[in-house]
Amino acid sequence: MIILGIDPGTATVGYGLIEVNKTDITRVINYGVIQTSSKLEMKDRLNIIFDDMNELIENFNPDTISIEQIFFFKNAKTVISVSQARGVILLSATRKKLDIYEYTPLQVKMALTGYGRADKSEVQNSVKDILNLDKIPKPDDAADALAIAICHHQHLNSLN
Amino acid sequence: MIILGIDPGTATVGYGLIEVNKTDITRVINYGVIQTSSKLEMKDRLNIIFDDMNELIENFNPDTISIEQIFFFKNAKTVISVSQARGVILLSATRKKLDIYEYTPLQVKMALTGYGRADKSEVQNSVKDILNLDKIPKPDDAADALAIAICHHQHLNSLN
Repeated sequence: MIILGIDPGTATVGYGLIEVNKTDITRVINYGVIQTSSKLEMKDRLNIIFDDMNELIENFNPDTISIEQIFFFKNAKTVISVSQARGVILLSATRKKLDIYEYTPLQVKMALTGYGRADKSEVQNSVKDILNLDKIPKPDDAADALAIAICHHQHLNSLN
Repeated sequence: MIILGIDPGTATVGYGLIEVNKTDITRVINYGVIQTSSKLEMKDRLNIIFDDMNELIENFNPDTISIEQIFFFKNAKTVISVSQARGVILLSATRKKLDIYEYTPLQVKMALTGYGRADKSEVQNSVKDILNLDKIPKPDDAADALAIAICHHQHLNSLN
């Protein structure tokens, strides 16, 4: 089974694809970011995110998308723009018939480190260790997306 | 020219279509709401909103969409779900090559009543008067959408 982890955003959408079986993560397939320029209007940024999400799903054919829930933001403008992008990402996954799972930042931290107050670097170090990588994947949003994919795998494992 | 006014939401998206020339509103074409059941998952609600928006645009062929900006919400959950729906609405309008204009609630109130602290019923009464209707259009979200369409027409007029 292939899990597509997504860290939603407007300027940067992180993605990470892992292949899993019932118990193990068997392979890191790909990771990276969809980027949109702040010089573009919001509508054009949303359009790029939708196109690139569709392309990602067509290229790698994941079964499931695991996406971070928007939980809390200090800045109301940020929550609006990230939520708009998230709407477009959910639309793409829905039209491609993917199963959709959503996890809060707290659930991701707990799954990756066993510790709800873990900081970003602790989570990213766990990504590196769990996936047997030499280095922390870059950029940060890609590592975060892999963490969200791993979180879903652990959730599946916990149901066995 | 046909203006499609949109009052974004998750449970209810209000829409209102008016035909205008350089100076006047010549006709109310249609108004109503796109509704999605709260029993559905968010992803399915977003999918319905996208499909219905596409259908609305195909049926009435507007030139322009005038959509309310999300400005302030007391409830963080509401702002997230409305913004997700708004992302999908903007995507539909962008892919259909509509011109997109956005107005704040304050701009809509000022345009309709000349008074930024006008309440909902004052705005809706202005909609009735400006459009020469016998009654206030129902439901409320449809009246609000017509107000947003009228706001854009007044903005165009002010540029002449």
